[in-house]
Amino acid sequence: MSTRQLKLGALTMGVGGPGRHNLWLDPELPADASVNIDWYIDIARQAEAALFDLIFIVDSQFITPGSPPHYLNRLEPLTLLSALAVSTRHIGLVGTLTTSYNEPFNVARRLASLDLISKGRAGWNVVTSGDAGTAGNYGRDEHYDYDTRYGRAREHVQVVQGLWQSWEDDAFVRDRASGRYFDPAKLHALNHKGEHFSVVGPLNLQRSPQGQPVIFQAGDSEQGRELGAAIADVVFTHAPSLEQGQAFYREIKERALRQGRDPEQVLVLPGAEVFVGDSDEQARELERHYHAADHSFEQALLEFGRSFGWHDFSQYELDAPFPAQALEFARSSFFTVAKRITDRAVSEGLSLRQAVQASRQLRPGAFVGSAETVAAKMSEWFEARAVDGFNIYIGHPGQFRRFTEEVVPLLQERGVYRREYPGSTLRENLGLRIPRNLR
Amino acid sequence: MSTRQLKLGALTMGVGGPGRHNLWLDPELPADASVNIDWYIDIARQAEAALFDLIFIVDSQFITPGSPPHYLNRLEPLTLLSALAVSTRHIGLVGTLTTSYNEPFNVARRLASLDLISKGRAGWNVVTSGDAGTAGNYGRDEHYDYDTRYGRAREHVQVVQGLWQSWEDDAFVRDRASGRYFDPAKLHALNHKGEHFSVVGPLNLQRSPQGQPVIFQAGDSEQGRELGAAIADVVFTHAPSLEQGQAFYREIKERALRQGRDPEQVLVLPGAEVFVGDSDEQARELERHYHAADHSFEQALLEFGRSFGWHDFSQYELDAPFPAQALEFARSSFFTVAKRITDRAVSEGLSLRQAVQASRQLRPGAFVGSAETVAAKMSEWFEARAVDGFNIYIGHPGQFRRFTEEVVPLLQERGVYRREYPGSTLRENLGLRIPRNLR
Repeated sequence: MSTRQLKLGALTMGVGGPGRHNLWLDPELPADASVNIDWYIDIARQAEAALFDLIFIVDSQFITPGSPPHYLNRLEPLTLLSALAVSTRHIGLVGTLTTSYNEPFNVARRLASLDLISKGRAGWNVVTSGDAGTAGNYGRDEHYDYDTRYGRAREHVQVVQGLWQSWEDDAFVRDRASGRYFDPAKLHALNHKGEHFSVVGPLNLQRSPQGQPVIFQAGDSEQGRELGAAIADVVFTHAPSLEQGQAFYREIKERALRQGRDPEQVLVLPGAEVFVGDSDEQARELERHYHAADHSFEQALLEFGRSFGWHDFSQYELDAPFPAQALEFARSSFFTVAKRITDRAVSEGLSLRQAVQASRQLRPGAFVGSAETVAAKMSEWFEARAVDGFNIYIGHPGQFRRFTEEVVPLLQERGVYRREYPGSTLRENLGLRIPRNLR
Repeated sequence: MSTRQLKLGALTMGVGGPGRHNLWLDPELPADASVNIDWYIDIARQAEAALFDLIFIVDSQFITPGSPPHYLNRLEPLTLLSALAVSTRHIGLVGTLTTSYNEPFNVARRLASLDLISKGRAGWNVVTSGDAGTAGNYGRDEHYDYDTRYGRAREHVQVVQGLWQSWEDDAFVRDRASGRYFDPAKLHALNHKGEHFSVVGPLNLQRSPQGQPVIFQAGDSEQGRELGAAIADVVFTHAPSLEQGQAFYREIKERALRQGRDPEQVLVLPGAEVFVGDSDEQARELERHYHAADHSFEQALLEFGRSFGWHDFSQYELDAPFPAQALEFARSSFFTVAKRITDRAVSEGLSLRQAVQASRQLRPGAFVGSAETVAAKMSEWFEARAVDGFNIYIGHPGQFRRFTEEVVPLLQERGVYRREYPGSTLRENLGLRIPRNLR
């Protein structure tokens, strides 16, 4: 048996994200869960009791009245995670911050602060913001074009990581006998002048026990994958099938290798939906029940528009061929999901109604069955190197409880999942090395 | 006796701010206090046990090797406060964020998140950033000029407060029976287009139990005072004497009245240093001892330069007349302290050495004596309407303990200070009304 171990993250859907408009109807879920700190603390502690590597907080900064419930009213990720940091001891705390609308100096400070407060458990999910409407909340008429977004992202992360190296590890002497607080020779300004950012530094924060926060990145497009392979410690993705998972896994590791990185130091962690039942049949029944309860066609149509920059599809005839205007948008845009949908609509001659229905199959991998079935399938994906672990979508509270209480022990019996935390920092738990510091 | 009650804040110096370079030598203080979350939690709980209204976190984003120890290595205020929010139940949480280098949408979200996490205890200390070097960490060669800084500040606060009104109080229906999550008619975009900012909104966060965070503002200049009177719920200041305190207090309340505000809804809370001894003489001895231990002339000279934009005064002859170059700087700059120092240097014909020594008297009001003396003097200032309360500088841990254990009970006996928290939010405790919301 390899010592390679499955990693687990908990991605909270709050009261209901995309495709989960009606999650809040579940009476086990506080109806204000997305702004309820007590609920978040409870989820984080449940995940920690099940030895999860991390809790993963997604984000958005733009709403319309049609946005999913969780989007309308949600705590800012890092503010939330700092409260979780002092409410937990082991679990990693990964927050989403966009490189498009945050100053690198502020991002560096906030994440480094979370890293110190949590004693080395912070992670940053680097995004560039997909919703075009976000731009209007930050003084811009339009979002940055695709190349600029990715160019900014790469330089932004480079600046932030540079600021995280402002102080050598032994810079703070704090010797009361000699009155020497720190060694000025071990403080380094950054003096970065790049295409998008200019930051002098140094940062006013020492390094944490894990050296610096762990970098997470998602992105399905060519540029997204290349960025992930270049900068990410962990790549977050969707893997609809074992085979697609394996192909993506191989590709990311190869890209990392080509960039001169150790492929074992770039982990692939797709999102996963889990439905656990007493039997496989009961689990499938549960899945159907939740999906049916969850989604009116009207909501699905509205959300379908999200992949097209919140395009209003209600203006079209549902059973006519897929609208030409939307095809045109997908061709010229950077929305990978829109491209994928329209490719299929064209090749299969789908109507709008059919395309909306088909798009609901573009979900992350679903693990549906008895606890035994789910544990076996997850182990299979892990051992076949389709994944290094899963970011479990936390939707219905009862389902999450079944996962932690029934599936996790079976993963442990199979020898693919830990029985205790191997370390005290997120890097140690994920098996990632501490980044070198200036010497 | 009036029901008007003294307010108390705790302003932490961490391991040592300006004029406190050697605070960290105190063996009672953890030498890494400025990044030690356990220490901050301990201080917040001590202050809460003494029924303080708030803990107040100052900030800076620019360091040089000569910066005071606390500046070199300090947690970002809001990240810190969120951890304190779930570690306390009553005390207000006031964080410093600059309007010069933060997007209003991000400020609105982060403070509203802290306000919800703390169940209505957040406050924002609005600053425009004084250190010219800060600009270099945010892609600018120079800091905004004085008028721009204050223009931005006023518009920034207006945008943030507008975003905090995105949702009416009863917008979230969350009725499971009817499946109705919210009322779209009670969601309002901002559509702000101003001189400095353009923000569409709405904010993706509901209001907190206190309506919106409390606004704090400091600023000694003409523009600073006018801004404070216009936007602040609480004005933070320095009051070197009872008479100066009374004059400032009167002025702020009059300015507020002229701007159409209720003067009782604008509180004046100067910083205060406290030295408590067994007798007045012993307290004065303690003060002398701490000040002497605290400050070499070299450090004082370096810090003196801070009021002149970190001008290097070590290049001048100490006993020659005050340098003409520095006089010129003060004349053309917006540094109130520099102006005050140079006015005095000119009128009294001071040498540089004498000016440095004189500047050390520009400290906040110091309350030095036995617990009885300190309590009597604070009550006197309060009853003479020189202050509505004090922001106590938390330096030496032993001194803070004496203040909470010995002075606070005497203030209670005098009837000027509460025996229990009057409410559950910061606004309630400060006696501030909940701001009206859109209807």
